[in-house]
Amino acid sequence: MSQDRARLVPVLHNIATQLRIDSIRATTAAGSGHPTTCASAADVVAALFFSEMRFDPANPHHPLNDRFILSKGHAAPLLYAAWSAVGYVKHDELMKLREIDTDLEGHPTPRLAFVDVATGSLGQGLAAGLGSALNARRIGSDYRTYVLMGDGETAEGSVWEAADSASFLKTDNLVGIVDVNRLGQSRPTMWQHDMEAIARRWRAFGWHAIVIDGHNMDAILDALAEARHTKGQPTAILARTFKGYGVSFLQDKEGWHGKALKAGDEENKAIKELEATLRPVADGAVDALLHAIPKPPAAPAARTGNPSLPPPSYKAGELVATREAYGTALAHLGQADPRIVALDADVGNSTFSDRFEKVAGDRFYQFYIAEQAMVGAAMGLAARGAIPFPSTFACFLSRAYDFIRMAAISNSNVKLAGSHAGVSIGEDGPSQMALEDLAMTRAEPNFTVLYPSDAVCGERCVELAAYHPGPVYIRTSRPKTPILYGADEVFTVGGSKVLRQSDADKATVVGAGVTLFEALKAYDLLKKDGIAIRVIDAYSIQPIDAATLKAAARATGGKVITVEDHYAAGGLGDAVAEALAPQGQTVVRLAVREIPRSGKPDELLDRFGISAARIVAAVKAIG
Amino acid sequence: MSQDRARLVPVLHNIATQLRIDSIRATTAAGSGHPTTCASAADVVAALFFSEMRFDPANPHHPLNDRFILSKGHAAPLLYAAWSAVGYVKHDELMKLREIDTDLEGHPTPRLAFVDVATGSLGQGLAAGLGSALNARRIGSDYRTYVLMGDGETAEGSVWEAADSASFLKTDNLVGIVDVNRLGQSRPTMWQHDMEAIARRWRAFGWHAIVIDGHNMDAILDALAEARHTKGQPTAILARTFKGYGVSFLQDKEGWHGKALKAGDEENKAIKELEATLRPVADGAVDALLHAIPKPPAAPAARTGNPSLPPPSYKAGELVATREAYGTALAHLGQADPRIVALDADVGNSTFSDRFEKVAGDRFYQFYIAEQAMVGAAMGLAARGAIPFPSTFACFLSRAYDFIRMAAISNSNVKLAGSHAGVSIGEDGPSQMALEDLAMTRAEPNFTVLYPSDAVCGERCVELAAYHPGPVYIRTSRPKTPILYGADEVFTVGGSKVLRQSDADKATVVGAGVTLFEALKAYDLLKKDGIAIRVIDAYSIQPIDAATLKAAARATGGKVITVEDHYAAGGLGDAVAEALAPQGQTVVRLAVREIPRSGKPDELLDRFGISAARIVAAVKAIG
Repeated sequence: MSQDRARLVPVLHNIATQLRIDSIRATTAAGSGHPTTCASAADVVAALFFSEMRFDPANPHHPLNDRFILSKGHAAPLLYAAWSAVGYVKHDELMKLREIDTDLEGHPTPRLAFVDVATGSLGQGLAAGLGSALNARRIGSDYRTYVLMGDGETAEGSVWEAADSASFLKTDNLVGIVDVNRLGQSRPTMWQHDMEAIARRWRAFGWHAIVIDGHNMDAILDALAEARHTKGQPTAILARTFKGYGVSFLQDKEGWHGKALKAGDEENKAIKELEATLRPVADGAVDALLHAIPKPPAAPAARTGNPSLPPPSYKAGELVATREAYGTALAHLGQADPRIVALDADVGNSTFSDRFEKVAGDRFYQFYIAEQAMVGAAMGLAARGAIPFPSTFACFLSRAYDFIRMAAISNSNVKLAGSHAGVSIGEDGPSQMALEDLAMTRAEPNFTVLYPSDAVCGERCVELAAYHPGPVYIRTSRPKTPILYGADEVFTVGGSKVLRQSDADKATVVGAGVTLFEALKAYDLLKKDGIAIRVIDAYSIQPIDAATLKAAARATGGKVITVEDHYAAGGLGDAVAEALAPQGQTVVRLAVREIPRSGKPDELLDRFGISAARIVAAVKAIG
Repeated sequence: MSQDRARLVPVLHNIATQLRIDSIRATTAAGSGHPTTCASAADVVAALFFSEMRFDPANPHHPLNDRFILSKGHAAPLLYAAWSAVGYVKHDELMKLREIDTDLEGHPTPRLAFVDVATGSLGQGLAAGLGSALNARRIGSDYRTYVLMGDGETAEGSVWEAADSASFLKTDNLVGIVDVNRLGQSRPTMWQHDMEAIARRWRAFGWHAIVIDGHNMDAILDALAEARHTKGQPTAILARTFKGYGVSFLQDKEGWHGKALKAGDEENKAIKELEATLRPVADGAVDALLHAIPKPPAAPAARTGNPSLPPPSYKAGELVATREAYGTALAHLGQADPRIVALDADVGNSTFSDRFEKVAGDRFYQFYIAEQAMVGAAMGLAARGAIPFPSTFACFLSRAYDFIRMAAISNSNVKLAGSHAGVSIGEDGPSQMALEDLAMTRAEPNFTVLYPSDAVCGERCVELAAYHPGPVYIRTSRPKTPILYGADEVFTVGGSKVLRQSDADKATVVGAGVTLFEALKAYDLLKKDGIAIRVIDAYSIQPIDAATLKAAARATGGKVITVEDHYAAGGLGDAVAEALAPQGQTVVRLAVREIPRSGKPDELLDRFGISAARIVAAVKAIG
């Protein structure tokens, strides 16, 4: 050990000890939380914050800071203590942990400037870290990303999706650290302290794996240095640790997961034991380390303004699938704006995101069949300033619903796109049909949900998504549909289009996507019978255009029919129903109400109740 | 090679060739489908059906049959051809592939007796196979389970969750076969034909891995025999194959994923090439193999009738969390019925499923933090006659939403339970709060959704779930709530309870779970102001008790307020709104309408709009 290292190690040990003490104090004050899982990881965190990472402690958002993602989000008090140790969080604030009027929540959320993505649903941090690492590549920065995981959470398959993708993408600027403290919530983990079993997994997935004693500061520093010098593959540091480290009655003991110590004797005894381990260091040694934290280079000037895209170029009546329009617009955006990135799960030739790949291949990230890693990486990219469009078949976004949920909590700037919505995909059958994707995304408060019917609207929805803040979901369809709108038509988040109307309208029919065309066919059929209907394209599902819907409902005697290629709950029908409820009007919902099957698209639309004929019948029945 | 083997191999080759031909013919007739992915796996499938598996071809449901799960569901034509080859599917029927009036759908569903779980969402079959293997252990049978995966799908993390769980649970009656055909949908897979890279992954996850040439029938038979003799760990057979094998213009070629051959020259040329590979075999050789398929032993007598459980035993007003009642009832069921099994994701001490573990530990399966594998295995168990209760925090069921979606398609008899619903969990914060679980499960047509408010109803909901056919979701709460019901109270799927009513009721308030108690508090507060309200416990969220709700709405002048610890879309409010729509009445929905945060449960109920005070305000406003 060099002299410098010999001086450094006891200072870092003392910082780690203070992080443990702060974590115990904060959780005891809160009356809940996870002090023992903070204790196992404190040495690693002290080393990262006070010796390894390059960052501006006063400016956690700095785009060229190294990133630290606490994937094991229940160790939040440790994260808050670390940001307090570097001066960003006031030390007093730690004692307000988990109260309603502080952002120091039970698990970290991006309400805090130093949190890139909300964590606490385990197994998500590594994918976000991969996104952060890919962003460094995008902007040509050498910032590095460190992800701290628990050992228990590596049972989540999402970790291995991210591990595979990271090694395939050769992100050597990414370090995964596993805090192998042996104990899960209810029992020991599958592998406990079998470090070789754990290392075998990471090595098999293409990572450089280093096994260390996670309470040996010298070993931690060596491993971080080794990671920094490892090229061509990401590094996994597998730190053998003890839950509750440093406190005799907590260390390596079962039954202490997620329990705060009792104020008084219990808390005091623990802190006394920890304080007894403090080592003699020079006066001002911690401050010296703090001041020595390497600062990032000056941030590049922030981009201002958004490019305008070329207008859609289609002929009236031409048949173009909205999924194809998605690819066209995405490619245009990719050429116009270097922040736009696209992520695929091996279906780019079906979603048409391959058009982006052709024009901006260096910002097209292939995740193969790993939707969780794809969405998680998009969250990491978004947190660092990219505008990511992860896309796959809409039904397979359900694979990543927990990530989508956390994206909503993070108010992440991700732009999800799902193709092949509904029974109109036809012969492939129900496993390939998204019929709950609107319910899934509408449920999340921060989400904007767009559902174009024609390719003009499709292109504009992509543009709207790109520059509308927060998470957006675009639903596209498989079948080719006729062009409805002119190139100059203007679409807005929260807008709609009234396509047919007269003073004689007997009912309003609200469609979107493929069902809008069924509504237009129904209009023609009913016209022959002398019945006029109003037809509305509700391309903005969330927010829905309540004002237009209300006016239409009033104008048509409160007779409103919704028709959607989606299950009955949580989709267009519910959205319109809630919009009309304040004026006391209800909705007749045509939707898919049973598990569908294979067949031709038109056969299925009719069999499952959402064809023009079914709309005609509903209009006549509502009479 | 023995003489027997030397006679067997060419017959199996010819069967495989016929499977390829049938797959091509069926997909060409359908005009869509995946013939090339059938071709790569045909040799393995021929060996399994005609030499390895023990099953009754006339009775695919036989409980002691070996099981074959086609995880790579897009190879459905191969599966159908195999069941045609053994005589179960009529050969003519193959030519109706993907038509609306056949059950030979684009991807397999349990509409077909030989399909245990719907596949086609990749990465799910291995978990289902693990469930099947665990079921063999449960019933003391030596039946074996074979899961055929694609190489591309092993990018799905769910595969590795299942792999970890299977090796941890030492299911040596489970064989995973990976058809390593090198090509995904849009491009080659991550690992292509690097068989050692693939084998390293399986070995690291604790499997016995065998690498073979997947077109060498002798090697296939050897590997299957080796798997049969491998004890203490599951076996992975990694078969190096070629997509489109046996057809010069398809084999190992990109651009042929999911494309049917054109009828005429293209189809004929392919079939001619395949036929040219047929080997001379003895007359009747195929029939001889068919007749030699080993049959399972006689099935045990099917269990008839369901046990009745001891009545709940609580005192009126006692405080008990519904999650605790869940554990109590589950343990009672476990003692009374050997079909009941429980699956946990390392939170059994929070969901109280650990009470089941204590009384029926051999039917308690620990999946650690791997929700997808847990739900997938439950589907496999259910397909084989068990009644599985997988449970975790409700928010983490979103991790398994794609499995839940496929469980609905399969009409799988799984009984999901999610605890810690809503903001009422308090300090842990939004990552731990399920606020979209009702939307998620209600969207699925086959799902029953139950949401008890007190422990009596909680126990009864568990009993209802166990014996109500099809998938059920039970939502439980973290806080202790007072006992409302007597031990003899009767609950039904589709029922509700009117807890407060009078002729003077000014409004109906519908609650469930924790909000029911807020509604009861609001009743008391309003009573002081001389305002009477009707209060309904909607413990059956799906189906909802439309008749009772309609009557209440009529009796209270159409003034109906719903209050739920859930986001506004897709939950109780939407369910009640749709129930009332036919009589033209609307609903005022109190629900969580923004991302919540940490805080005390009562603070959060109020801040996010679902407390007694908020109900009182809503009743006064609706006036």
